[in-house]
Amino acid sequence: MTPATSLFSPVEADLRTLADNLIQLVGNDHPILYAAAEHLFGAGGKRVRPAIVLLVSRATMLQQDITLRHRRLAEITEMIHTASLVHDDVVDESEMRRGVPTVHSLFGNRIAIQAGDFLFAQASWYLANLDNLEVVKLLSEVIMDLATGEIQQGLNRFDVGTSIETYLKKTYCKTATLFANSSKAAGLLSDVEAETAQHLYEYGRHFGLAFQIVDDILDFTSSADTLGKPAGSDLKDGHLTAPVLFALEEKPYLEVLIKRKFGQEDDLEQALALIQDSLGIQRSRELAAHHAKEAVQHLSILLPSESKQAMIDMTDYVLSRLY
Amino acid sequence: MTPATSLFSPVEADLRTLADNLIQLVGNDHPILYAAAEHLFGAGGKRVRPAIVLLVSRATMLQQDITLRHRRLAEITEMIHTASLVHDDVVDESEMRRGVPTVHSLFGNRIAIQAGDFLFAQASWYLANLDNLEVVKLLSEVIMDLATGEIQQGLNRFDVGTSIETYLKKTYCKTATLFANSSKAAGLLSDVEAETAQHLYEYGRHFGLAFQIVDDILDFTSSADTLGKPAGSDLKDGHLTAPVLFALEEKPYLEVLIKRKFGQEDDLEQALALIQDSLGIQRSRELAAHHAKEAVQHLSILLPSESKQAMIDMTDYVLSRLY
Repeated sequence: MTPATSLFSPVEADLRTLADNLIQLVGNDHPILYAAAEHLFGAGGKRVRPAIVLLVSRATMLQQDITLRHRRLAEITEMIHTASLVHDDVVDESEMRRGVPTVHSLFGNRIAIQAGDFLFAQASWYLANLDNLEVVKLLSEVIMDLATGEIQQGLNRFDVGTSIETYLKKTYCKTATLFANSSKAAGLLSDVEAETAQHLYEYGRHFGLAFQIVDDILDFTSSADTLGKPAGSDLKDGHLTAPVLFALEEKPYLEVLIKRKFGQEDDLEQALALIQDSLGIQRSRELAAHHAKEAVQHLSILLPSESKQAMIDMTDYVLSRLY
Repeated sequence: MTPATSLFSPVEADLRTLADNLIQLVGNDHPILYAAAEHLFGAGGKRVRPAIVLLVSRATMLQQDITLRHRRLAEITEMIHTASLVHDDVVDESEMRRGVPTVHSLFGNRIAIQAGDFLFAQASWYLANLDNLEVVKLLSEVIMDLATGEIQQGLNRFDVGTSIETYLKKTYCKTATLFANSSKAAGLLSDVEAETAQHLYEYGRHFGLAFQIVDDILDFTSSADTLGKPAGSDLKDGHLTAPVLFALEEKPYLEVLIKRKFGQEDDLEQALALIQDSLGIQRSRELAAHHAKEAVQHLSILLPSESKQAMIDMTDYVLSRLY
């Protein structure tokens, strides 16, 4: 398993600057927000989203250095992503994320809501000042999709009638939209042609779907230590992800357990055992691999470069997290 | 005292369409958000912000009907305003607003945060799709100012060293920025010249300041019945508005009471009595009247029209709320 950092080597220096900038931007003039920003943007974050934006930027600017606008776009994607995480954690009452306490559990709801709003606001402002209406539109789609996805996810909790299509739509809104639209936006800032921009969008979309499906599988296959939260948390909260939806086709009793919201003793343990005993995880792996492969195919339009290679390797890395 | 509705007569039909649109937009596909939207945008809202946008629109489009973009801008301002109210009420743990329970106290924090995020997201999306980069920038300033203002207000609580300048800056961020930038934006959508746009900004800015100063005075002079919340609520929460800041210059004991956060019996009642006994309310009235007058002066650039007259009358109405 390759550590994500070495994959990012073409943009490693860029990512360090980005992290410092984000802490300054958010924390300026406000001691508690500063602490929250340090907590959010400090060591530990994977920064996959800005890394992809920076890699797309470099892969489409082979003859020259990337611009300040490309860098700003990378910051904007991380701000939007982080803002939505902070609010989602309040809404979902999650105490831990990636093994560290969430902002609201450390600083309270007040700071968490304000930090999220401030990040969204700052992102909107930077976005407008990129002076590119098409990029503004793409990222406003993302913000809209994230809000819709979070609401949709809440509505579909414990709904055993959820189809894989609905799951993929929700996954697009919660995760893939940001990768898709920010990859395309990075291309537009490099003045790529419309066809290339569309391929970058598709790369991001498939990459994002693979990324989230893998994350959803890990909820069932990893230890609490690796996840930074108890295994099976998603299921317990009623979020029915790919492994569960596939398993439901084989194990009718799983439906009973979910419908009663794991209300009786050992219900959750039984449900987890049924999923392990099904083809759910295997079929989810195949689904993730399918999207990872699709992502790579959309990169054939780019000239060879270190950054393009990193974008390809990223898809392998995502799948490798499963082994 | 003229009721606000008759002042809005040139745009009354526009405002009815707007309210219906907003409920549909927000509530579509989600029963609880629909209920929240009905609660937020249903009868009872003053809709002063979209009314000003629509009046500016009509006053700058004398030869033709206003466009769909003008209408969208009016909706966007109400969405942004409402989103920030909903989140502020969660942050400030306010149970009542304008005599009705707040969204979070009716539907819980989860729905309140999601409704606010959804409104911001929807507003950003509409904004981007107005296809006018300058308008996007103006409204992104507003979103930024609202977030900054709310944070600043939290930091300045119970700070007896707050100056009138700091208070006015906070008031700009919390209230006047939306009137200022949306008035200017409405003008830009009518293709007015830069100078006119700047006067519209100044009209909005002064109108917004007068509007908020009056609101802050009413916290001391109105009954709980009229306010829809207990009188003196702002002071109790440590929000030091114009009447308090002026009174502090005359009444040193007020400082003692505020510094100990009204921790002893009858502290709040004593503080309210000291403010009533000072020139604080009178001087605040003069400050509001000054800004109302300034607002009107910036309208001299507009040709006479029913809508321009309504914009002038609005400033009188704001002041008349004090009597």
